[in-house]
Amino acid sequence: MAKHPRSPLAPKRFPKLPALTGVKFAAAMAGVRYQGRRDVMLALLPPGTAVAGAFTRSATRSAPVRDCERKLTLKVPKGSGAAILVNSGNANAFTGKAGDKAVRTLTGAVAKALGVPATRVFSASTGVIGEPLPTAPILQALPSLVASLSEKSAAEAAEAIMTTDTFPKGAVQEITVEGEKIRLFGFAKGSGMIAPDMATMLVYLFTDAKIAAPLLQKTLSGLLGETFNAITVDGDTSTSDSVLLAATGQSAAPPIKSGAPLAAFRAALHALMRDLAQQVVRDGEGAQKFIEVAVTGAANGEDARRVAFAIAHSPLVKTAVAGEDPNWGRIVMAVGKSGAKADRDRLKIHLGPHLLAEKGARAAGYSEAKAAAYMKKAEIVIAVDLGLGRGAAQVWTCDLTHRYIDINADYRS
Amino acid sequence: MAKHPRSPLAPKRFPKLPALTGVKFAAAMAGVRYQGRRDVMLALLPPGTAVAGAFTRSATRSAPVRDCERKLTLKVPKGSGAAILVNSGNANAFTGKAGDKAVRTLTGAVAKALGVPATRVFSASTGVIGEPLPTAPILQALPSLVASLSEKSAAEAAEAIMTTDTFPKGAVQEITVEGEKIRLFGFAKGSGMIAPDMATMLVYLFTDAKIAAPLLQKTLSGLLGETFNAITVDGDTSTSDSVLLAATGQSAAPPIKSGAPLAAFRAALHALMRDLAQQVVRDGEGAQKFIEVAVTGAANGEDARRVAFAIAHSPLVKTAVAGEDPNWGRIVMAVGKSGAKADRDRLKIHLGPHLLAEKGARAAGYSEAKAAAYMKKAEIVIAVDLGLGRGAAQVWTCDLTHRYIDINADYRS
Repeated sequence: MAKHPRSPLAPKRFPKLPALTGVKFAAAMAGVRYQGRRDVMLALLPPGTAVAGAFTRSATRSAPVRDCERKLTLKVPKGSGAAILVNSGNANAFTGKAGDKAVRTLTGAVAKALGVPATRVFSASTGVIGEPLPTAPILQALPSLVASLSEKSAAEAAEAIMTTDTFPKGAVQEITVEGEKIRLFGFAKGSGMIAPDMATMLVYLFTDAKIAAPLLQKTLSGLLGETFNAITVDGDTSTSDSVLLAATGQSAAPPIKSGAPLAAFRAALHALMRDLAQQVVRDGEGAQKFIEVAVTGAANGEDARRVAFAIAHSPLVKTAVAGEDPNWGRIVMAVGKSGAKADRDRLKIHLGPHLLAEKGARAAGYSEAKAAAYMKKAEIVIAVDLGLGRGAAQVWTCDLTHRYIDINADYRS
Repeated sequence: MAKHPRSPLAPKRFPKLPALTGVKFAAAMAGVRYQGRRDVMLALLPPGTAVAGAFTRSATRSAPVRDCERKLTLKVPKGSGAAILVNSGNANAFTGKAGDKAVRTLTGAVAKALGVPATRVFSASTGVIGEPLPTAPILQALPSLVASLSEKSAAEAAEAIMTTDTFPKGAVQEITVEGEKIRLFGFAKGSGMIAPDMATMLVYLFTDAKIAAPLLQKTLSGLLGETFNAITVDGDTSTSDSVLLAATGQSAAPPIKSGAPLAAFRAALHALMRDLAQQVVRDGEGAQKFIEVAVTGAANGEDARRVAFAIAHSPLVKTAVAGEDPNWGRIVMAVGKSGAKADRDRLKIHLGPHLLAEKGARAAGYSEAKAAAYMKKAEIVIAVDLGLGRGAAQVWTCDLTHRYIDINADYRS
């Protein structure tokens, strides 16, 4: 794989992730496919940790995704710990029964090495689809992974799961409940094959909150629509997308059950997830511009989402943004093709602060020069008001540049 | 607009279009937007011509599209002729009431100049969306257009309607009914903003068959799904897509009503429409490869279409084809994300004659070298059998190359 330069939209630095009691990470160079870089990460979670998850709905989802889905439905042995094993370079997707066996072999070995039940070892694989996953290099790396587990190694783990990513993605939140701190952090990978309608990419979220697994799952699921399912890079949906959220219960704060503590926890988790989702877009393959599409006034929420994604998926809108061309006719086109209820004469389109179109035609005060100057920015907001109802949606995407072609005409993903 | 080189997938030459009695064309340089090339075409159809049409279903469709739709529902004055006026360079879409007025002005002027009812003057505009259409240059060109109308000028007309097209698109068919010839021909423009779920692009079809307008319309509508609605370049749907089919009734063959003559006419029209649809894909913006996606064994026809378009729309599949990489994992990904019923273990994928995948994994006899050699070809067939039922679909698309970015980051469409 060619090394691609760091995205110009990347955050200045990787955040300092807090140490959570008993949450340990390790990363190693197993050489599954990539050489000279870490490509396997292991996470150990302390006894009593609640785990929630969300996964791609692809009909051709990977063997580890199917395994995780099944394990999350099983009864948890009381007081058991848990673990997460992830490799990059090979997706173990469309690998038949051999793929399922590879997952059993790897998660079984982790369970034995760490003394946790095999049903509590979750895994993910990301990279090439359709090639058998070699288990030997990962099994060989396992003893040194286990030996180096540390509460301070989350950053290395975040790097080990990267594929075409140009930077590791991390985020941190903290809330206080009855005077006691609850910490949340997470990391993610994702750059191409990014599209909504699922739990996107590989995302690992950790908190020391005390919260029961069903409520944890419900809270996670409820936030996907406005975070990981509100982004797109290329409209292509991965076979491996997974989000896991682990709550260790080690915080001194009282259990999160309802009311203000749940609202605060939910808000912090929302901010954490949105931050990571936007970082994935900022590392969208070839991205030079970060685009927010905000739709209001739709007949309903579903229509708002349709319009927002019709714009965010449109290669013509995305190439216009890449070319710094305020080509709002293409936004009109995308609204028209979305299938959502729309009335030409009620539509209002803004590019940042500039009103482009209203009353079925170009706005009277429209200035091409001002709109063109706005397009030079690295962060573009396209706002569409349909003038019909109260449906609203917000999605994030990036522009479509030559580098997307470079990356994907030669990278085997 | 930068001049783009002729597509490597273009046919060797523009076909010789037959002269149909009373079907006359003219083209002129009006300078609506483009300079130094023909940008307006006029067609005159003889008295008694039946006209059928199909148009984009976009919610933001253009003023001429709305006008054509309305006119096709009106009663036809007995024995009246008809006309078609088309300009390139400006789409007259999202231009408000001024846009509607421009259509009335132009079609009214054509009606007066040619002595046909205004309700039988159809029009189309293609080019930039959202800018007011200047009627003056077209009105100025009208007298010379009328003066130069000729049964031999169809090729010039086909050139005048081009925008980012790199070659004009024409096709011819001929059938014999009871010893008498019926001729069909047509021309089309289209290169970007090409996606299904409508009658795509600008397409003008002519025949001297004697056939009543309702049957003509039914025949046209029934063929759209397998022709113009079975292609995609970029998944973006134009505001201006229009197909018009004119039948003059001048052939000596008996009227087409049913049975074998209707079947022969339908088959010839089908071949004509498929030919033009495939030519649009061959001129897809930046296209270097022509891709046929053939899906069989789906639970139903709708599912087959979903899978076919999920593959044909996927930027990851299209960039892999551009890179001549037999990256079938991306085909698996596209099947998975399509939403159609699919079973990993029943899926079979062929690349041309090469079996890539079956039984949930890479095929036993798969040869990367052979598949890579196949990918060097200019015409690629991707065949997917879902192994579930009898649903089938065939769609055509092209690869996604750097030139698509070049064209769309600097062309204002």
